[in-house]
Amino acid sequence: MTVFRDTRLKPQLNTPLYQQLYEHLRSAILSGQLPKGTQLPSTRALADKLGVSRNTILNAYDQLFAEGYLESVGGKGTFVTQALPEVSFQPRGIWHPAPARRAHRLSEQTQALLKAPIMPPSLPLSRGLAFKAGVPALDAFPYELWAKLVARHAHRLNPEVMQYQDAAGLRSLREAVAEHAIVARQVRCTPEQVIITSGSQGGLHLAARVLLNSGDRAWIEDPGYLGARAALLASGAEIVPVPVDAEGLNVQAGIARAADARVAYLTPSHQFPLGVTMSLSRRLALLDWAKRSGGYVLEDDYDSEYRFDGHPLASLQALDASESVIYVGTFSKVLFPSLRLGYVIVPLALVDAFVAMRRAISYTTPYLEQAALADFINQGHFMRHIRRMRTLYAQRRADMIAAAKDLPLEIYAPSTGMYLVGWLNEGLNDRAAARKAAEYQLRVVPVSMFAIEAALRGGLVLGYAAVTRDEIDAGMQRLGRALHEMSEEKT
Amino acid sequence: MTVFRDTRLKPQLNTPLYQQLYEHLRSAILSGQLPKGTQLPSTRALADKLGVSRNTILNAYDQLFAEGYLESVGGKGTFVTQALPEVSFQPRGIWHPAPARRAHRLSEQTQALLKAPIMPPSLPLSRGLAFKAGVPALDAFPYELWAKLVARHAHRLNPEVMQYQDAAGLRSLREAVAEHAIVARQVRCTPEQVIITSGSQGGLHLAARVLLNSGDRAWIEDPGYLGARAALLASGAEIVPVPVDAEGLNVQAGIARAADARVAYLTPSHQFPLGVTMSLSRRLALLDWAKRSGGYVLEDDYDSEYRFDGHPLASLQALDASESVIYVGTFSKVLFPSLRLGYVIVPLALVDAFVAMRRAISYTTPYLEQAALADFINQGHFMRHIRRMRTLYAQRRADMIAAAKDLPLEIYAPSTGMYLVGWLNEGLNDRAAARKAAEYQLRVVPVSMFAIEAALRGGLVLGYAAVTRDEIDAGMQRLGRALHEMSEEKT
Repeated sequence: MTVFRDTRLKPQLNTPLYQQLYEHLRSAILSGQLPKGTQLPSTRALADKLGVSRNTILNAYDQLFAEGYLESVGGKGTFVTQALPEVSFQPRGIWHPAPARRAHRLSEQTQALLKAPIMPPSLPLSRGLAFKAGVPALDAFPYELWAKLVARHAHRLNPEVMQYQDAAGLRSLREAVAEHAIVARQVRCTPEQVIITSGSQGGLHLAARVLLNSGDRAWIEDPGYLGARAALLASGAEIVPVPVDAEGLNVQAGIARAADARVAYLTPSHQFPLGVTMSLSRRLALLDWAKRSGGYVLEDDYDSEYRFDGHPLASLQALDASESVIYVGTFSKVLFPSLRLGYVIVPLALVDAFVAMRRAISYTTPYLEQAALADFINQGHFMRHIRRMRTLYAQRRADMIAAAKDLPLEIYAPSTGMYLVGWLNEGLNDRAAARKAAEYQLRVVPVSMFAIEAALRGGLVLGYAAVTRDEIDAGMQRLGRALHEMSEEKT
Repeated sequence: MTVFRDTRLKPQLNTPLYQQLYEHLRSAILSGQLPKGTQLPSTRALADKLGVSRNTILNAYDQLFAEGYLESVGGKGTFVTQALPEVSFQPRGIWHPAPARRAHRLSEQTQALLKAPIMPPSLPLSRGLAFKAGVPALDAFPYELWAKLVARHAHRLNPEVMQYQDAAGLRSLREAVAEHAIVARQVRCTPEQVIITSGSQGGLHLAARVLLNSGDRAWIEDPGYLGARAALLASGAEIVPVPVDAEGLNVQAGIARAADARVAYLTPSHQFPLGVTMSLSRRLALLDWAKRSGGYVLEDDYDSEYRFDGHPLASLQALDASESVIYVGTFSKVLFPSLRLGYVIVPLALVDAFVAMRRAISYTTPYLEQAALADFINQGHFMRHIRRMRTLYAQRRADMIAAAKDLPLEIYAPSTGMYLVGWLNEGLNDRAAARKAAEYQLRVVPVSMFAIEAALRGGLVLGYAAVTRDEIDAGMQRLGRALHEMSEEKT
């Protein structure tokens, strides 16, 4: 049989000899080289022929028996199974990644998602964090304390907490979150209404799946957060961009464009990326729309813990008397993004639906981080860390404003959050400016990247939370050179 | 003003006094009790009247100014803002959970999900784990080793790994998974094709979102795994139950019912819950259907690491020459469920689509568990643990079979996995048997719970992986009494 004439087992490979032989024979059977009903050599004869131990042959034959490629016919020997179906089959041999061998059809929501912009991939950390938005002060993180809490729970793992857990999240964490949201954000809730998610992205996606049919319309701030757009697109929503002005999302414009929208996504406390706060009259108008139309409001409250003058503004949820607001929070901005923890707070009547969908998506997040975070909050470290960061970010914001004073930028820096916007001189293209800044090792994102229809003056989102005074000074000097160079090239 | 006549601040409450006053005034404004344009008392006058410090009043007024409820009219004093919009608003006062105040409309997929069965909630652990399926031997878990790996990474957290990470998962873990899948399951892949998910539930849901439009048809084994049904329903699929027999999923029956299905879900290595292995001819017929129709196969390979005689059977993916198989794996069965780690291995041409959807769903899972697991695999602990568990589960399976010999059960126990099926005598209702067993502190799940249309003989899924010899003996005795009692009641 030519099949065995060509067989060369290679002891130098990582793959065991029996497996090499098994794969060789399987391919030969599937390709028709060894037709149905062919008798195979005895294990002893084949071992002699290939110069390997008889055990190697036995192991390979056993595997082929077990998987149905071979059958033994009482006393007569080993044969390729007669009952193999007639199907065209290309054995793959040694596998190499190759161009697609077939037409692939993706779902409509996946096709929409692949066309949507995403944040540019991060530069290597060696280039520093100036001026990445959305990342907290990792230089001021309480590393030892956090590691101690995590290690303590890792050492206390036990069968009770290693099994499948409640899809709504760890009870102690839900209680801690409810307490924090009530005190710090005046959210009205009980712990039952808190559902732990994998970051705010997990919360936005969860809400979209619970509330939106494919094809439903959804308002989104224009310009607005790309992660929210992705969550809505991933749920098959038709995106309705709604303009943002100094009072936040323009509710009347939204109603004029799509009064029948099922969902309105917004960042009322600190609009991303423009930085404005939604006015009280707009808030009330939005809730009125939701109440009348039966729509829902997705309130993304991503960084409002950081307000530098006076107390944080109350959340939109605090004003909601008609169960229309889904409040979305995250721990990415107070702790760190790769923790992947966030939460939604939903009307009591929707809890069962959210938990059922949460379970279908992936049950819940890992136990360990949830337990450590519950301790972190309950022992007071969370509020202490927020207070420390509030002072630090206020200082860094002031440093940024000072360092920007000689740059050709009009700074808009509300006294909240972790970033400011530097508006460029009229006519300058912010994408070109961001590319130029990248040449100077700076991570700045152009405001226009977040726009759908909005025609905006060029601007740069400049995060200051993650950078020290020195990095701010050096980074702003480089930004100045980049902007100068761009103007030179333009003229 | 009656508003202030009624005002009683309560120092004994947790809520600070200024916040009590703020909430009181906000409610009064929103309800119209304090109409637009009303002048408020001076801070000093109100402080005297209420018997609190002037700072309390100042803080409350500041908050109301910041949120837009109050305005100051140059020199004349403080007034309720004139520009408040006319909207009907019910102040909520102290919040109590209440019946829904509005009609809530859930998405179609959520409504479908809420009608689907889910596994019954776990009994308290104090009642023991006999005979919970799907939970590994937590009594034989390498606790110290795992805690050490986790603690090491917790103590080495640094800005690089605390930022947003690759949505496909940690590179080192993807490499380790690819290597394991190639060696142990003969999967053909490169690390690029591996995407880390939140357990197999996360993988099933992810695949459904990438591949299915709302309303697309999906085959599912009948009886079959409830988590897969939930993932498909959550994506708006129309479920097509396909019967299972001794050769696994009946491919011809599936084609007859819905040749145009977009997805076929199955557990070919070890069918859940019946325990059968899919025959080679059915495997080839399924792949042939997928190739001809353009459909996809979701291969859920949840416990095939545990095969007690000979080598594990190759995966279905190993036979796929037309990029039709999405391979779904989990670490819940080798490590533990609340780790929430699993993976999908997808055709190279689909990687970008899967990663885009993964990002939109929740980016990825936490860094810490991914890093610890990569070490656990790369240092050889993973394969060592599998080998130890294989020996242990083979023993526990034998113990179960021995303990069942006097029970009125026909045991079906293939030499693989973590559970067996005990078929009841003809005519006995398995749901009644499971309820009776629960009275005896046993966690047994009736096979019929997993059926959609299939009319099955009553049977009980009995997990043996998580229970010791003593628990097996005692549990089977209790099960015998429960079954006896049920027969008595019946006659």
